Amino acid sequence: MKAIYLDKINTFSEKELAKPECGERQVLVRMKAVGVCGSDVHYWKNGRIGQFVVEEPLILGHECSGVITDVGEKVSKFAVGDRVVLEPGIPCMKCEHCLKGRYNLCQNIVFFATPPDDGVLVEEIAYDEDYVFKIPDEVTDYGLATMAEPLSVGLFATQRIKPALGEKAIIFGAGIIGITCLLAAKAAGCKDITVADIRDDRLACAKEMGADQVVNTMKDQIPDNTFDFGYEATGADACYNLAVKCIKPGGRIAMIGMGPEIQKVDMVDYVCKEITIVPSFRYSNTYPLVLDLLKDNQEKLKQLITHCVPFSLEGVEEAFHIASEDPSAVKVVVEF
Amino acid sequence: MKAIYLDKINTFSEKELAKPECGERQVLVRMKAVGVCGSDVHYWKNGRIGQFVVEEPLILGHECSGVITDVGEKVSKFAVGDRVVLEPGIPCMKCEHCLKGRYNLCQNIVFFATPPDDGVLVEEIAYDEDYVFKIPDEVTDYGLATMAEPLSVGLFATQRIKPALGEKAIIFGAGIIGITCLLAAKAAGCKDITVADIRDDRLACAKEMGADQVVNTMKDQIPDNTFDFGYEATGADACYNLAVKCIKPGGRIAMIGMGPEIQKVDMVDYVCKEITIVPSFRYSNTYPLVLDLLKDNQEKLKQLITHCVPFSLEGVEEAFHIASEDPSAVKVVVEF
Amino acid sequence: MKAIYLDKINTFSEKELAKPECGERQVLVRMKAVGVCGSDVHYWKNGRIGQFVVEEPLILGHECSGVITDVGEKVSKFAVGDRVVLEPGIPCMKCEHCLKGRYNLCQNIVFFATPPDDGVLVEEIAYDEDYVFKIPDEVTDYGLATMAEPLSVGLFATQRIKPALGEKAIIFGAGIIGITCLLAAKAAGCKDITVADIRDDRLACAKEMGADQVVNTMKDQIPDNTFDFGYEATGADACYNLAVKCIKPGGRIAMIGMGPEIQKVDMVDYVCKEITIVPSFRYSNTYPLVLDLLKDNQEKLKQLITHCVPFSLEGVEEAFHIASEDPSAVKVVVEF
Amino acid sequence: MKAIYLDKINTFSEKELAKPECGERQVLVRMKAVGVCGSDVHYWKNGRIGQFVVEEPLILGHECSGVITDVGEKVSKFAVGDRVVLEPGIPCMKCEHCLKGRYNLCQNIVFFATPPDDGVLVEEIAYDEDYVFKIPDEVTDYGLATMAEPLSVGLFATQRIKPALGEKAIIFGAGIIGITCLLAAKAAGCKDITVADIRDDRLACAKEMGADQVVNTMKDQIPDNTFDFGYEATGADACYNLAVKCIKPGGRIAMIGMGPEIQKVDMVDYVCKEITIVPSFRYSNTYPLVLDLLKDNQEKLKQLITHCVPFSLEGVEEAFHIASEDPSAVKVVVEF
Repeated sequence: MKAIYLDKINTFSEKELAKPECGERQVLVRMKAVGVCGSDVHYWKNGRIGQFVVEEPLILGHECSGVITDVGEKVSKFAVGDRVVLEPGIPCMKCEHCLKGRYNLCQNIVFFATPPDDGVLVEEIAYDEDYVFKIPDEVTDYGLATMAEPLSVGLFATQRIKPALGEKAIIFGAGIIGITCLLAAKAAGCKDITVADIRDDRLACAKEMGADQVVNTMKDQIPDNTFDFGYEATGADACYNLAVKCIKPGGRIAMIGMGPEIQKVDMVDYVCKEITIVPSFRYSNTYPLVLDLLKDNQEKLKQLITHCVPFSLEGVEEAFHIASEDPSAVKVVVEF
Repeated sequence: MKAIYLDKINTFSEKELAKPECGERQVLVRMKAVGVCGSDVHYWKNGRIGQFVVEEPLILGHECSGVITDVGEKVSKFAVGDRVVLEPGIPCMKCEHCLKGRYNLCQNIVFFATPPDDGVLVEEIAYDEDYVFKIPDEVTDYGLATMAEPLSVGLFATQRIKPALGEKAIIFGAGIIGITCLLAAKAAGCKDITVADIRDDRLACAKEMGADQVVNTMKDQIPDNTFDFGYEATGADACYNLAVKCIKPGGRIAMIGMGPEIQKVDMVDYVCKEITIVPSFRYSNTYPLVLDLLKDNQEKLKQLITHCVPFSLEGVEEAFHIASEDPSAVKVVVEF
Repeated sequence: MKAIYLDKINTFSEKELAKPECGERQVLVRMKAVGVCGSDVHYWKNGRIGQFVVEEPLILGHECSGVITDVGEKVSKFAVGDRVVLEPGIPCMKCEHCLKGRYNLCQNIVFFATPPDDGVLVEEIAYDEDYVFKIPDEVTDYGLATMAEPLSVGLFATQRIKPALGEKAIIFGAGIIGITCLLAAKAAGCKDITVADIRDDRLACAKEMGADQVVNTMKDQIPDNTFDFGYEATGADACYNLAVKCIKPGGRIAMIGMGPEIQKVDMVDYVCKEITIVPSFRYSNTYPLVLDLLKDNQEKLKQLITHCVPFSLEGVEEAFHIASEDPSAVKVVVEF
Repeated sequence: MKAIYLDKINTFSEKELAKPECGERQVLVRMKAVGVCGSDVHYWKNGRIGQFVVEEPLILGHECSGVITDVGEKVSKFAVGDRVVLEPGIPCMKCEHCLKGRYNLCQNIVFFATPPDDGVLVEEIAYDEDYVFKIPDEVTDYGLATMAEPLSVGLFATQRIKPALGEKAIIFGAGIIGITCLLAAKAAGCKDITVADIRDDRLACAKEMGADQVVNTMKDQIPDNTFDFGYEATGADACYNLAVKCIKPGGRIAMIGMGPEIQKVDMVDYVCKEITIVPSFRYSNTYPLVLDLLKDNQEKLKQLITHCVPFSLEGVEEAFHIASEDPSAVKVVVEF
């Protein structure tokens, strides 16, 4: 069985691994598609993200779909042949955070492609059935199914920010995460959603995905005190300072983007306007719902898959170059 | 009737005004004590706070207590002789924020000593009875009663951060607002409250006010991932970055302090730990409860009144110099 | 100016009144349409609802739309000719509930057609501009505009129950209020909404209004532990006991319906399943949003207006007879 | 190793069991004290509680404390000799409710003394270390330590009802659960707590436990619209109807008591006053905190242990007779 490892910065290699054994509560999944995420690219180019450092060769990839090829003895929910996606983290379910239902904060979580835990650019994987989910029949494309993962990010941020019916929202960032926030916010009954970015091509995409308005913040003003809440999905501090102006007093902002560690934020305005900052990290309990959301938005989401490459050393290398360098790339998918 | 005006930076003058008329739903209050707040001192030294600029002579002071000398025809809750405090802002009760119960965010609010609205360094004032509250009989000292206002700030931040029974809290800042947060957090059932500051004298005071631990952040480390929530009552960005380390994942921080407009904040840590930032501006609906809290804590709060001066041009000037320059000053009160 | 009074049970009379004067913050509204509500019919047939007793002749009607014929000196938001709806209650904005943003609980509220406060079956009325709202241009029908009021009931219950994206809901009662709950729940992103009732004609109507499933509870079973939350819009205790079975553990139920004072409820099941009961009374802060919802759902809502009668003594009598006795009646509108 | 079984209604027997084996993540606990709960007595007298029916001989008892006599290989938190209490339920940590942090709603939970799961009237037990908690050193009495369990019930109800600082509360029921609600509410900063019951001896006890007022509802009136929230800890529907009168509009009631399945409740008043009913079933995530609460209240809680009996067939029979028939009994403890 073939796996692609990140050996060191900029360097992948192919290795042959033994086929994994399937534990009694696990299923064996043959990978069919893996999406390349910005964090994968970041490890490839920088060898680290914050405290997480690639010290040993690491398998990247955490957005995946596949088909079940074997099931453990005590598995009851799945059968061979089931088309599935994997939730990429397995929490301990014993710590304070897990016991309180916030397992995304588990400090013992094993999460794909986060050193030292391997990811899914590998042909087969054994996985705990509790974190495996059937792809709806209506979603026939495995590449599309990998988008359950980024969609979970937007969905979870939306669940945390608790939009009320009819609220007006602004989304900073028209990248893949900003788009998933848009889809989730629309599904939650928000109205008049504005997407802000500095690239017109991305804004055009946001418009097609259903944004009611788009604003290029390099050219246009956003009106003050207009939005009930916002999403910050860029990691750029400039957006924090735009957000605090255009969100109404008493509003709130979902904080998802991660940029430079230290950011310059106009905190006095946040205080005076009582705008609550609600950060959102990965997700928990999103998968059952996210697959519905995926089904309802497949036509839109398909358009975001701009490139597909085959699973091979060359294919993966090409995928990472495209994701990193090609401005037309939105989502690059490795196909098995 | 005498009033003290701030004419321009560093310059007070005394003026004689006509006694105010008492409207039909107003009470006339003879001032008995006015506390000097940091914001008063800030206007005196800088002539502005953010967007609020002293362009015309302005009466400072918003922490006050007094006695009722007349009541309007339609006033039902008060009688001449009642000892009272005034909630310093009168909201419009028509705007979106007022209608939703968040009248502290009212953009039409008339608030004492916020340009262009005069404050209370004046002998007599007519005031809407709905924002007047009787001082409990047990609180015999008018100076002490003025502390209902700063105590409201700590109480409101506490109400917004919603402490759960038994939660561990840290307070950044051992000034008067930090202390009021401490008293409110203790009243709300928090345990093991730590106060952090850079001045040992203030920390000693916090200890006497009931802090379970104190930390001088210039000398000592605060343990990581220890507190359920925190209060930021300094306005110093260093504290945001200490807070995100020592608060547990999934925790929250009440943001009260206002420092320089732009602050350098480690937002990536806030995201990864999902620490919600809950800003708190002034207060709403605190007065009925704050007077109980004042009553229960009078012995402690009395110790915070370090200086008293008489109401006169010289007295007020002295009060502002003490509040601004004397490191031993905690609360300076002008007595009428 | 003509008004129709309920003199005593089952007895209306017509009276000639002086045209009302328009206060400085009021607008004068010429009535164009008034919807007949179940509570109006209840006063007509029983002379009382709970503690509210018709002791003097009373003008009924609280669902209304009209056109502005005069504006007070201090009115800024409206002009003569504006097409408007009136929010039927004017709260005191001074009591504890008003100050906290829950003005629907104000004990001093003046509410149309609630003894001793008159309603709107009258040609002209002067009303505080703060509780007057412009009808969207897209809504050309005054009868339809009166439905802003019942729609507010469903919207408010929905705001209180806080649906999360993708939640499954059940609605007990396919009358006008159940239907407004359905429209609000759909707008809030709920999925798979089931409406339950005992009348097939009403269920057919619910289906046309967008219900994903309908259940006749006289004939069919509702599956256990299926719904995230429910609405009780019948006032029949049988529905409480059906609800507690079919709502999932940890779920919640919006309680809107008012039936007999005492109801037999299976409280042990509510405890064991931790199903929170969230009652909802009238509404607050719904009007700005409800008009959007009305605009988005006009085609559906139009179908609910089954009968129109002219404003006259005979017309009103006919309207109440239809509303009370004709099983085909959903909403009966009096037109001016 | 000796165990006491409930064979059938009113009939205990003693059996000799093999000493349990200690799993690798388990600890072996020698029982030291078991409190008799109302539910234990109910099974003894009626053979069932709702859907839970005693069909096979069952070991009763779920309030317990003991000392660790062995630890599994992978146990890290405990050592032989540790004094501990056991949280009586072990949830699956895989279902929807467990994953969302509401493991008390787990339908697969294994819970002491709930048919068919045995309880703790047995000399030794092997138990998952995740649900074992060290008794604070300050709490030297094993009997007292068993009260962590009923105290968890009051604590959890309090956490769910979310008291705000300074709120006024009323508690219906001065039994053991009512008292634990009282202790938790006081710890959470509630003021002016009233306890209502129909027995003067219990009310006297509540007074000693810290109630600010007590009311015998057979003799005295409770003033209307007085309390911010209440606890219903009797299961008697009369209390629901008293509660809705004396709780303020917009208030809430924690529902803990379980009485007859069907109760007659004045739902119209609940709707008109918008009083939210917040049921509370068992507890989750209370143990770490409850031991602190136990430590802080030991002097009070000790007074509630009115009877102690030795662990033997005769002792257990006596314990159940006392708990069931002796009006002076509050908590009866079986000592090992």
